[in-house]
Amino acid sequence: MQKVRVGIIGAGRIGKIHVDNLLRLPQVEVAAVSDLFAGPELEAWAAERGIASVTKDSGEIIANPDIDAIFICSSTDTHVPLIQQAAAAGKHIFCEKPVSMDIKQTIEATQAVEEVGVKLQIGFNRRFDHNFKRIAEHVQGGTIGSTHIVKITSRDPNPPHKDYIRVSGGMFMDMMIHDFDMARFVSGSEIVEVYTQGAVLIDPAFSEYGDVDTAIVSLKFANGAIGVIDNSRQAVYGYDQRVEVFGSKGSVAVTNDYPNTAEISTAEAVYRDKPLHFFLERYQAAYVEETRMFIECIIYDKPVPVSGTDALGAERAALAAKLSLQLGRPVKTDEAVQLAEQHLHFA
Amino acid sequence: MQKVRVGIIGAGRIGKIHVDNLLRLPQVEVAAVSDLFAGPELEAWAAERGIASVTKDSGEIIANPDIDAIFICSSTDTHVPLIQQAAAAGKHIFCEKPVSMDIKQTIEATQAVEEVGVKLQIGFNRRFDHNFKRIAEHVQGGTIGSTHIVKITSRDPNPPHKDYIRVSGGMFMDMMIHDFDMARFVSGSEIVEVYTQGAVLIDPAFSEYGDVDTAIVSLKFANGAIGVIDNSRQAVYGYDQRVEVFGSKGSVAVTNDYPNTAEISTAEAVYRDKPLHFFLERYQAAYVEETRMFIECIIYDKPVPVSGTDALGAERAALAAKLSLQLGRPVKTDEAVQLAEQHLHFA
Amino acid sequence: MQKVRVGIIGAGRIGKIHVDNLLRLPQVEVAAVSDLFAGPELEAWAAERGIASVTKDSGEIIANPDIDAIFICSSTDTHVPLIQQAAAAGKHIFCEKPVSMDIKQTIEATQAVEEVGVKLQIGFNRRFDHNFKRIAEHVQGGTIGSTHIVKITSRDPNPPHKDYIRVSGGMFMDMMIHDFDMARFVSGSEIVEVYTQGAVLIDPAFSEYGDVDTAIVSLKFANGAIGVIDNSRQAVYGYDQRVEVFGSKGSVAVTNDYPNTAEISTAEAVYRDKPLHFFLERYQAAYVEETRMFIECIIYDKPVPVSGTDALGAERAALAAKLSLQLGRPVKTDEAVQLAEQHLHFA
Amino acid sequence: MQKVRVGIIGAGRIGKIHVDNLLRLPQVEVAAVSDLFAGPELEAWAAERGIASVTKDSGEIIANPDIDAIFICSSTDTHVPLIQQAAAAGKHIFCEKPVSMDIKQTIEATQAVEEVGVKLQIGFNRRFDHNFKRIAEHVQGGTIGSTHIVKITSRDPNPPHKDYIRVSGGMFMDMMIHDFDMARFVSGSEIVEVYTQGAVLIDPAFSEYGDVDTAIVSLKFANGAIGVIDNSRQAVYGYDQRVEVFGSKGSVAVTNDYPNTAEISTAEAVYRDKPLHFFLERYQAAYVEETRMFIECIIYDKPVPVSGTDALGAERAALAAKLSLQLGRPVKTDEAVQLAEQHLHFA
Repeated sequence: MQKVRVGIIGAGRIGKIHVDNLLRLPQVEVAAVSDLFAGPELEAWAAERGIASVTKDSGEIIANPDIDAIFICSSTDTHVPLIQQAAAAGKHIFCEKPVSMDIKQTIEATQAVEEVGVKLQIGFNRRFDHNFKRIAEHVQGGTIGSTHIVKITSRDPNPPHKDYIRVSGGMFMDMMIHDFDMARFVSGSEIVEVYTQGAVLIDPAFSEYGDVDTAIVSLKFANGAIGVIDNSRQAVYGYDQRVEVFGSKGSVAVTNDYPNTAEISTAEAVYRDKPLHFFLERYQAAYVEETRMFIECIIYDKPVPVSGTDALGAERAALAAKLSLQLGRPVKTDEAVQLAEQHLHFA
Repeated sequence: MQKVRVGIIGAGRIGKIHVDNLLRLPQVEVAAVSDLFAGPELEAWAAERGIASVTKDSGEIIANPDIDAIFICSSTDTHVPLIQQAAAAGKHIFCEKPVSMDIKQTIEATQAVEEVGVKLQIGFNRRFDHNFKRIAEHVQGGTIGSTHIVKITSRDPNPPHKDYIRVSGGMFMDMMIHDFDMARFVSGSEIVEVYTQGAVLIDPAFSEYGDVDTAIVSLKFANGAIGVIDNSRQAVYGYDQRVEVFGSKGSVAVTNDYPNTAEISTAEAVYRDKPLHFFLERYQAAYVEETRMFIECIIYDKPVPVSGTDALGAERAALAAKLSLQLGRPVKTDEAVQLAEQHLHFA
Repeated sequence: MQKVRVGIIGAGRIGKIHVDNLLRLPQVEVAAVSDLFAGPELEAWAAERGIASVTKDSGEIIANPDIDAIFICSSTDTHVPLIQQAAAAGKHIFCEKPVSMDIKQTIEATQAVEEVGVKLQIGFNRRFDHNFKRIAEHVQGGTIGSTHIVKITSRDPNPPHKDYIRVSGGMFMDMMIHDFDMARFVSGSEIVEVYTQGAVLIDPAFSEYGDVDTAIVSLKFANGAIGVIDNSRQAVYGYDQRVEVFGSKGSVAVTNDYPNTAEISTAEAVYRDKPLHFFLERYQAAYVEETRMFIECIIYDKPVPVSGTDALGAERAALAAKLSLQLGRPVKTDEAVQLAEQHLHFA
Repeated sequence: MQKVRVGIIGAGRIGKIHVDNLLRLPQVEVAAVSDLFAGPELEAWAAERGIASVTKDSGEIIANPDIDAIFICSSTDTHVPLIQQAAAAGKHIFCEKPVSMDIKQTIEATQAVEEVGVKLQIGFNRRFDHNFKRIAEHVQGGTIGSTHIVKITSRDPNPPHKDYIRVSGGMFMDMMIHDFDMARFVSGSEIVEVYTQGAVLIDPAFSEYGDVDTAIVSLKFANGAIGVIDNSRQAVYGYDQRVEVFGSKGSVAVTNDYPNTAEISTAEAVYRDKPLHFFLERYQAAYVEETRMFIECIIYDKPVPVSGTDALGAERAALAAKLSLQLGRPVKTDEAVQLAEQHLHFA
């Protein structure tokens, strides 16, 4: 069997995770890695994994005729040009979320991909989580009838560093975007309107950048259902990722994953260990699965499980949520782009 | 010990429950019951319980000098005049929720009570539930630090009869009012703004009366916290009443009560019985406790646990939620009364 | 309707509980109470409850022609003569467990009852618990197919006082007897053989009286199933009462009851309150139900839910367990009486 | 770094799992595989994994001077001679459980290993499970004080094939041996006495070979604690593996692992998916961990986590349990070998 030869652009934490997951797949060869800060350390890391080429120049990877697919794991501002170049070079593309902070560029990037006809899969890893997949299966399978209410909780164990807050794109584009995707995924319906309650309750640093650290966004879906997402940048008990879908025939809800099932009963209380700490622990298997699926889509020429349309759907909702907070009123997702031009300034 | 002599106005389902709960208290004598439809059946029921007087005329009870306290369990439209008469007669008052559909009348009623100085306790029974009390204790005790997010789910097992929908006052005043009270109770803070997403997904009959059967209301509290309530008129798996409060030091969440802890594992699934069916099952002990507390407040002259202020707080939020749905924008609770005059017509 | 007039013999803690539960039943009149230590305190207690007669003499109650049914709540050594006298007087009898420490006397007592034809219900209160009833329903209803394994855990929060240990009859007759009854109840089958592992791990005082404080007894049932009971006199986290029945088509298991469903998540752990503390809390509703059923059996002349045969079945197993510990070998329940004559000395 | 070169003897299901887990370790080279039925299929499988040598002759692997460590995954009757040969050749050894059906041979094998001083790790994989490790940590860490009661449930989803039953060594040596090891592991104490209740309730085929399919074994430990293990060859709801340790300061209990946390509530019930189906699913990570630990012990010359002494402790208990069933009385583990000579015939 011909192996799928993969090049990685951006060898930060997530890029390295993808490499290690790709290396578990017998049908894959990781051929090259590029990183702006490539050096002896990265070279040693690559050598240990049998990766032949390490470079600072992403262009080298895109130009390499032996490479079939590219993982874009560099900073968000580089995603769109890299997608465009990779598509032009006929490479299949896996791109981390969000595609762009500027939704118009996301549109351009996805159009570029469509014109060429290569695969583009977006890194909404949570769709591959065993819990959320099970919800989606039940909703699609009709277990709970027609969907009435979607509820999503997503809280991080710790707020990001101040330097990150500044460039993060804000809570909605950086963090809640996963939940907008989840809402679309489990409901099977498009988000048409959002309303945002936001607050700065954890760290005033968020205010400095016009951001919030706590938010509740209510949703209206195209299929008539309604929903709500709550986010917090700091849950001291750890990563809190729960989803519930309620419908005419019942509900399906998933809670967190735990490191073990041990329940301890003492004279004080009955207790257990905290949930898995953060996304690397919680979504370890989901990361493996998303790369496996991407490679499979290439080999068998199947549609990708998370498309450019999904990137756009989530980004549009994130933009609308940001605008709703700013304007103090509900915002329709299809008015978000136009409103953004009037009210927001993209870097 | 001198017994507290109680008169009951309105011997429907809830009135009868209060009687049976009062009869379990050794310090109470149920002296009289009035009901518009009093007849042989009610007389037999009263005789079995040793209640001396049964009448159609609530005025008789209010005028009875031997009666210390009155339970108002008649239809909502009678609450305000009955409170005013009972207060004028110097009786302590337990009144079912809501005090009134017209918040201005609620204000008048509570003022009448304050002027006289009698006790007025409102029938927000859920505050006495073992689960919700435990949440409030943890929040007040500082277990979870400062409050960031309040989440309340409240779903009925079955929609009410069409005849009831018509006169119910709508989802916010009839059903979600309990949740507005719960939000105030567990947060210890006033609701200052609401935004409503509403939908008719269960029965078109709700549309006929300008009502909804499914709603999500997001909340802003005076202490800076934010929150969300979701309501449905029909959860096929039974009464669904859950609350979660999340804060700087953690979270506390309560789920439903179940008829037993039995877990059955078969070749198909692992399952358990559905939650307790409806409020009579779920809040049985809470109803007992609210009457016990009311009587205790009379005997020891203590402040009531649920006051006229609490009635007003919840009604104002309910009114704002109704207006938010109608106007399609967030509504501040302190603009609700004025807005209502412009936009709503009270019967 | 003619009320059932009840007399209570023995007004200790459990006797008083029965009175309060009986007083909740409209078909019952508690006519008289006797207690060896009757005095002003008991008289006041009785007066508060409208009980006309208080005496030191149980014979007075038995001789009273107006009394229909007698609750025997006095010390175990008085049960058998009181049953015999009450039966001779034609009274229906509710007797606390165990009927006797000497199984031959239990046989005599139950025979006396059978000859006269009055009702005799034994106070195995746990059969009326919502959880254990649900297990029995599932087993009888065929949910789990034929029974293979029965597992029962029963641990007290605190060991009894030393004075009580001395007269308790030992762990098997005093404590595990409930579990032998439970094993018979949920399996619907007789215990035919037991083997005991016992240890003194909590308090050496148990050794002084030839008793143990920790025990595991394995069981063989007439229907071929096998089982195990574990008992401890001290679970620091509270009353631990769980049952599991495993069979050819699955299993059904019940866990403890908790004072609330609150789950608290903090930086240290996820925890909840301890289970309900002891039998008064855990079996409150079961006590109510057992008296209700007893009265109903009298009124409608139905068979009692826990009979003298059940008393004998549990006592025989308890005796066999005690002998097994002493002899260091498995003991068949039908050899227990004969073995006891050779090996045990009854006071 | 010098890699640890491993040879595998026996390429059945478990041998292959070990290979795949070893291949995930960068410090390991799988150098050779032997299997009695080696052929083109196994060669293709090995080639895919870069394993240079495939042979039918285990002697070739043992004689290979380039091999540092050997995994013995062949049938139980070959374990002892292979251990002896591998030890004589100076190889470190990982051997599947049990070492032998004849405990005297196990003693000889472990002595051979001790004389040479190579590592010998036994494949009691469950010690590496996240749940059971957590129990052991709590017990060793003093969370529950001194141990009083150990309870282990272990039930397979399906009985083995009839051909396997015949050669399995019986329930105690084949299946419950894992639980005897678990009992020793979580208690940190030796099993000194056992008593067995056994039954054939699932398939009469077990009777044909003098075996049982359902058993409860009660245990006495050297440290004074008592315990119980229940086993069934068929739990229709899937693999059921639970452990509870109860002590003077509390208890710690672990339940099963589930494929997801989804809870579905419908008009019929509240349910979830069944537990992970069998050992390959449940102990996937534990298998990875046991090989990782073995390799680490070789590299850093540390003591193995599961030694020959552990093999002997579990085998002795299994033998005693088998004898207890046969003799109908409790059996001390240190009389098991002598008793076996009188009562059992080894093939």
